[in-house]
Amino acid sequence: MRAEIISVGTELLMGQIDNTDARYISYKLPECGVYVYYHTVVGDNKTRLAQCLKTALLRTDVVVLTGGLGPTEDDLTKETVAEVLCMKLVFHQELLDDIKSYFDKSKRIMTVNNEKQAYYPEGSIILPNKNGTAAGCLIETKYQGEDKVIILLPGPPWEMESLFNEYVIQYFNERSSEALRSVYIRMFGIGESAMETVIKDMIDNQTNPTIAPYAKKGEVMLRVTVRYDRKNDDADALLKPVLDKLKVLLGEYIYSYDDTELNLVTGRLLIEKGISFSCAESCTGGMLSAMLTENAGISKVFLGSLVAYTNEIKNTMLGVDKSTLSIYGAVSKETAAQMAIKIREKTKSEIGISVTGNAGPGVCSGEMPVGRVYIGFSTSDSTTVTEYTFIGNRDKIRHMACLNALNIMRKYALVKG
Amino acid sequence: MRAEIISVGTELLMGQIDNTDARYISYKLPECGVYVYYHTVVGDNKTRLAQCLKTALLRTDVVVLTGGLGPTEDDLTKETVAEVLCMKLVFHQELLDDIKSYFDKSKRIMTVNNEKQAYYPEGSIILPNKNGTAAGCLIETKYQGEDKVIILLPGPPWEMESLFNEYVIQYFNERSSEALRSVYIRMFGIGESAMETVIKDMIDNQTNPTIAPYAKKGEVMLRVTVRYDRKNDDADALLKPVLDKLKVLLGEYIYSYDDTELNLVTGRLLIEKGISFSCAESCTGGMLSAMLTENAGISKVFLGSLVAYTNEIKNTMLGVDKSTLSIYGAVSKETAAQMAIKIREKTKSEIGISVTGNAGPGVCSGEMPVGRVYIGFSTSDSTTVTEYTFIGNRDKIRHMACLNALNIMRKYALVKG
Repeated sequence: MRAEIISVGTELLMGQIDNTDARYISYKLPECGVYVYYHTVVGDNKTRLAQCLKTALLRTDVVVLTGGLGPTEDDLTKETVAEVLCMKLVFHQELLDDIKSYFDKSKRIMTVNNEKQAYYPEGSIILPNKNGTAAGCLIETKYQGEDKVIILLPGPPWEMESLFNEYVIQYFNERSSEALRSVYIRMFGIGESAMETVIKDMIDNQTNPTIAPYAKKGEVMLRVTVRYDRKNDDADALLKPVLDKLKVLLGEYIYSYDDTELNLVTGRLLIEKGISFSCAESCTGGMLSAMLTENAGISKVFLGSLVAYTNEIKNTMLGVDKSTLSIYGAVSKETAAQMAIKIREKTKSEIGISVTGNAGPGVCSGEMPVGRVYIGFSTSDSTTVTEYTFIGNRDKIRHMACLNALNIMRKYALVKG
Repeated sequence: MRAEIISVGTELLMGQIDNTDARYISYKLPECGVYVYYHTVVGDNKTRLAQCLKTALLRTDVVVLTGGLGPTEDDLTKETVAEVLCMKLVFHQELLDDIKSYFDKSKRIMTVNNEKQAYYPEGSIILPNKNGTAAGCLIETKYQGEDKVIILLPGPPWEMESLFNEYVIQYFNERSSEALRSVYIRMFGIGESAMETVIKDMIDNQTNPTIAPYAKKGEVMLRVTVRYDRKNDDADALLKPVLDKLKVLLGEYIYSYDDTELNLVTGRLLIEKGISFSCAESCTGGMLSAMLTENAGISKVFLGSLVAYTNEIKNTMLGVDKSTLSIYGAVSKETAAQMAIKIREKTKSEIGISVTGNAGPGVCSGEMPVGRVYIGFSTSDSTTVTEYTFIGNRDKIRHMACLNALNIMRKYALVKG
């Protein structure tokens, strides 16, 4: 079954909020055999909404509408749907009772416009809402001779999500055993086109599962999706040969098979292996430490970081030699090496990692070019420094520096027994 | 002029990412007189994309397409647009040179599929991309006898935003004098309903400009929007009475009239007033320093930070008394105060700020409850500590702690002559 999600709300068209409802539904719906082919966003306008609904009914089997179920005059999703499908709105005393008791519980007084929220298209299945006053509904109907399912859900994410999980998934699971399962593979250290070249044969000859590459914030990813029958197939077994082959071809770059981000993968690995660490940051200004401390439980292995932004602090608090700073400069292999060594020694951690570079903007004369970054990595056995030249704005350069530092830590943790 | 944004990418339909591109464009486009009426998301499928493009061309004047300009086989936005508009794709040597030099700079090898990225619809205006290999383009054409503008932009937000700001805004500003101007007022220290109560009269009696409150990530905001003619009206003069009134009613909470975030407002103020600072962070793990160092030029006043995650580092590297830590604990007023004092003394900064708290998850027995945070602020004159209890997950608690620390620094800088 093909689906379209229509999100109703002028605030979306003004760019005030992200359309997280569409994303959530899109992520979940394929698990019960309904595939999202389109998202549409339209404002609180009856004519345009009606037109979008008609378009959706002609090109898909399931139309999910979110938003526009509130008590105010510009909430008109139910009214528009009823008009397009030639249904009338009927009053539900039990819904009005629910709304009244909702107001009582939150110690507010119900205003008269909330009565509007007790009207629903005749014959629709009501989806009661425990978290708000707008119930959802589900309509099974014919449109131009074809079977259609139309689902109306409230706009606020927590209300929408709870109705979706309680009613919508079950509705489709009871009607079909066909489903999609996706595995999201994240990689680091390979570009999108190089990755595609490596697996060109697999992409050219894909059937089921399918393979799709994509890029996100400086990283390359693959989505492997299997279409299967919940009653008769084992999704894992269908996925396995493809995942195994990808592991052979790209394994050295793959850091996660479940869409977990690099800072979380690295942090968990360090915790798991009991590798204590500390950071000395310059251009990333604390970002590397902040990313690693997103991990709950990181306090087991993270000791501390020094953000040494000036040469003086690099010398006084971290212990980098004045001569190193004056001869080679703050952005240099030599300084990066000393930063990593000194933070490791001062905190008595197993590994010390350092980042120093020029994140821009502007080009500082006599200094390193914008984008030049040195990452130092030190253990009691050895200290290495890697030079990078990142392209992009300050934000991107800092982000790329952190990802590379995380990857160095991850690789060390991986080989450690 | 009416616009539709078509975002191309199966990853959007699979719910992997939010459609932040559509949001960004929707937010900005009205400023140059182009009003967004629809968003559409469609997968990497030529037939469906072509159909969506035709629908958009029939119902709007401007169609902005994002995504699908990459080097891979499923990137087919250019090909589809060219087909629908009966244009041919032509090769641009200068674009291939740009792509090659992009690869050279980042020390990677260009693969043959990148050549595809040097082809663009004949007669289109190329929008060169400094942050990636996919240039954008702008096409002026007729569709069924009517003037249309079609704009193709790359999908990655960094690249899309920079092309949009550099070329698209200017293009429309040169062609139309009708415009919307929105002022986004950001506040800190007041809740959404309290704020709405304060300005209820203004909201009830709004005409032009209009006022719309909204909430985002723990902060409260107002959008004031004026519709005006760039040739004949003075938008500032139309906005002024409303902004003046808001300043009287809410001025003590307002920190920005141009949607600038608190970390940037605070950082700029510290730079402007020459106030040197340093941070001692525990539960925020470097996040406060990372937020402040987003400011270009912060090196003029930011000296350094110590992320002291363990009691030992708080003692050895920062100098917090062992007795303070053992008697009062790491999450306490006393420790927060010493952290702020010590980092200020060690770095010789004008102000020292500290954050220590329990960001969760879980409830640590014998320790402070999840959400309890102490923020210390120290100058040579005095040291103060404020206690907070934040509600939410680890991410939100850390974020709220940083916002409050930033606001304390901002208030100090504001009153300093």
